[in-house]
Amino acid sequence: MCGTCNVDTAGSAAAPAATNSTVESASTNNGAYPARGQPKSSPYQSVQDYISNVNSFKIIESTLREGEQFANAFFDTATKIKIARALDDFGCDYIELTSPVSSPQSYEDCKKICQLGLKAKILTHVRCNMEDAKRAVECGVDGVDLVIGTSSFLREYSHGKSLEIIQKTALEVIEYVKSAGVEVRFSSEDSFRSDLVDILALYKAVDKAGVNRVGVADTVGGATPRMVYDLVRTLRGVVSCDIETHFHDDCGCAVANAHSALEAGATHIDTSVLGIGERNGITPLGALMARMVVTAPEYVIQKYNLKSLKALEELVADAVQINIPFNNPVTGFCAFTHKAGIHAKAILANPSTYEIIDPSLFGLTRYVSINSRITGWNAVKSRVEQLGLKMTDEQVKEVTAKIKKMADIRPLAIDDTDSIIRSYHLDL
Amino acid sequence: MCGTCNVDTAGSAAAPAATNSTVESASTNNGAYPARGQPKSSPYQSVQDYISNVNSFKIIESTLREGEQFANAFFDTATKIKIARALDDFGCDYIELTSPVSSPQSYEDCKKICQLGLKAKILTHVRCNMEDAKRAVECGVDGVDLVIGTSSFLREYSHGKSLEIIQKTALEVIEYVKSAGVEVRFSSEDSFRSDLVDILALYKAVDKAGVNRVGVADTVGGATPRMVYDLVRTLRGVVSCDIETHFHDDCGCAVANAHSALEAGATHIDTSVLGIGERNGITPLGALMARMVVTAPEYVIQKYNLKSLKALEELVADAVQINIPFNNPVTGFCAFTHKAGIHAKAILANPSTYEIIDPSLFGLTRYVSINSRITGWNAVKSRVEQLGLKMTDEQVKEVTAKIKKMADIRPLAIDDTDSIIRSYHLDL
Repeated sequence: MCGTCNVDTAGSAAAPAATNSTVESASTNNGAYPARGQPKSSPYQSVQDYISNVNSFKIIESTLREGEQFANAFFDTATKIKIARALDDFGCDYIELTSPVSSPQSYEDCKKICQLGLKAKILTHVRCNMEDAKRAVECGVDGVDLVIGTSSFLREYSHGKSLEIIQKTALEVIEYVKSAGVEVRFSSEDSFRSDLVDILALYKAVDKAGVNRVGVADTVGGATPRMVYDLVRTLRGVVSCDIETHFHDDCGCAVANAHSALEAGATHIDTSVLGIGERNGITPLGALMARMVVTAPEYVIQKYNLKSLKALEELVADAVQINIPFNNPVTGFCAFTHKAGIHAKAILANPSTYEIIDPSLFGLTRYVSINSRITGWNAVKSRVEQLGLKMTDEQVKEVTAKIKKMADIRPLAIDDTDSIIRSYHLDL
Repeated sequence: MCGTCNVDTAGSAAAPAATNSTVESASTNNGAYPARGQPKSSPYQSVQDYISNVNSFKIIESTLREGEQFANAFFDTATKIKIARALDDFGCDYIELTSPVSSPQSYEDCKKICQLGLKAKILTHVRCNMEDAKRAVECGVDGVDLVIGTSSFLREYSHGKSLEIIQKTALEVIEYVKSAGVEVRFSSEDSFRSDLVDILALYKAVDKAGVNRVGVADTVGGATPRMVYDLVRTLRGVVSCDIETHFHDDCGCAVANAHSALEAGATHIDTSVLGIGERNGITPLGALMARMVVTAPEYVIQKYNLKSLKALEELVADAVQINIPFNNPVTGFCAFTHKAGIHAKAILANPSTYEIIDPSLFGLTRYVSINSRITGWNAVKSRVEQLGLKMTDEQVKEVTAKIKKMADIRPLAIDDTDSIIRSYHLDL
């Protein structure tokens, strides 16, 4: 937790009783928007997306692969095991590990994690060549994720291979991995800057060769939701295998791109805890949960252990020595703090007015702040009642004016506001 | 800057000479994707969006209104003025201020900022009633932003007004503001949970009454890019005035939603610095710049003072006592740090391989880290040359193995890696 942002959301002095409206409306929310209530007419209620997988997606959790590419990451064996177990407890479908070819310890750790007996399937992510694939299979993984750059940039400046060579090698490596009885995925890298015809031809060939999944990767983080929808939708008509997607967050669109991919028929989303990875990282697990619990509440609530999200994020944040961002969805210190008077009034009457996510789903509580010049008398009235004081509405309005006046001069804490209220009450 | 994350990107020991490929390709990138190079065939190159405003959007900067609703925000007059000047220098089209009705100081500050003579137009955001509108006009603002909740939630639990009353009041207030020679916007609140027919009828009426803009607000942060596209696209066919959009970030989609809104014909995007606002905030100015400099480089580079983004973010972060998130687009401490060997090799040959944004546009530099077990010999070779040492490729590969072995045991800093290289060179 950020040292300067030590607001205690758990303290939640002004939190009204939590409602369970999200849970109640879950069963009727078929991937459309308004969880927590239905408007009279809305175009989003009638969308019938037969190819959408928002209600059946799977997570490939890559904190121990993509996350190891984060600038601050150094995971020793014990830390890797702790994180792997926490991801497994959370309900992740797959856990992806750094290539065993990277270093001797990476090889040993991969073997060790395969032997933990987790419910999640263990994958490792290797370059698309026979030598790397053999080392991966040796480790006892459940699946091998093959990757190769297909954009003209990567073909020219990275590996220097033609598409013919890429395809020939891919088919050999895929055959080998399958013959070993192990799952196999084939992914292009930098898919959105690759020639569309080239990658469709390549995916079609590997699909025919029997891969379990093909992967689409926005390696540089420049894709937009509509681009993602278009490419995945096109690909969905070309291959019959599963479609995995991987989004970097350089332009802040990694969560929305993942959602669009699922709408277009993708089946798997790559995540890491807090999004850690190369540069500023990929789709964060927690933010994706925030997105999907609104889109597909029933599926997400029954499948993932949402109440353990905060502890999982704290585990990884400690391991890589970062603070949880102040604006992190769900677990940011003020994600459920309400401040403006107009918001606070409505939240006190019905939390769904200004909350799309019920914090109790994540084991968290809301907090209504009244310590500012933008507060309102309805919020102050609620605090007056919590303090066990009796005042008329006119009196509450008068003390609210006093709070606003003081808040114009200096920042107030809840203690200050309580003192103003108590002192006013004493004078009555 | 985060105390634990003190990596010095400015130090940039291994940074190759910056290239200007984004700038070069800018003129050919008509809102489609691949800035920095064109693939041979791509569906994104042929999209002709005649309603898209990605190349002509305007920013309504709301750090001094939405941002004041952030849990940690307390802005005194001097701070408000400093932030307003910085936003003006950055090139924001509009600066939105807290309602002058909120408190006596809010009223005084609003008047004072209107008198600064900034290039940006000054707006204030008030409830849709005559009394609030009059106070706003008194302050000398260039525009008044009217807002009222239109969802069934807000009508029931917040203001309790029917749509007939809302429309009648809106038309009176609009007429008054226009008669005072001031710009006027009318916005619904919680637009995506409002009845579609209701809000279209309302927008049509206020458009006919001559508002400058109508506003669409995802007040609870639950909208998806496709929902945004659909609603704004529909609205674009109903009103002839400008369309402003406002996205909360509860589900991590605020940047992508803004982009989708522009594609669908919206003209204005609400932002705040670092996204500060109610709960976890709204579309962050910096992340939106990252998104739009990729989509519309020419427009963004000539219009906004990108090199001042970092200082602007630091100013606001200090004022509200938060750390810049580790994963912030562009200015996060590792947004341009490359670590995996396969990435580093290609980046050294051509930065466009793994970077969609040229850091020099923001006055920043990239950093290639070689201090980990996932580094590669090409990256190490580059460091060897920077140190002025001579080695064969075989020798570089050997010292790379030594670095990986040491990095398996403990975290390495650049000094450690340099020592390993120098000691190996001495032994030769």
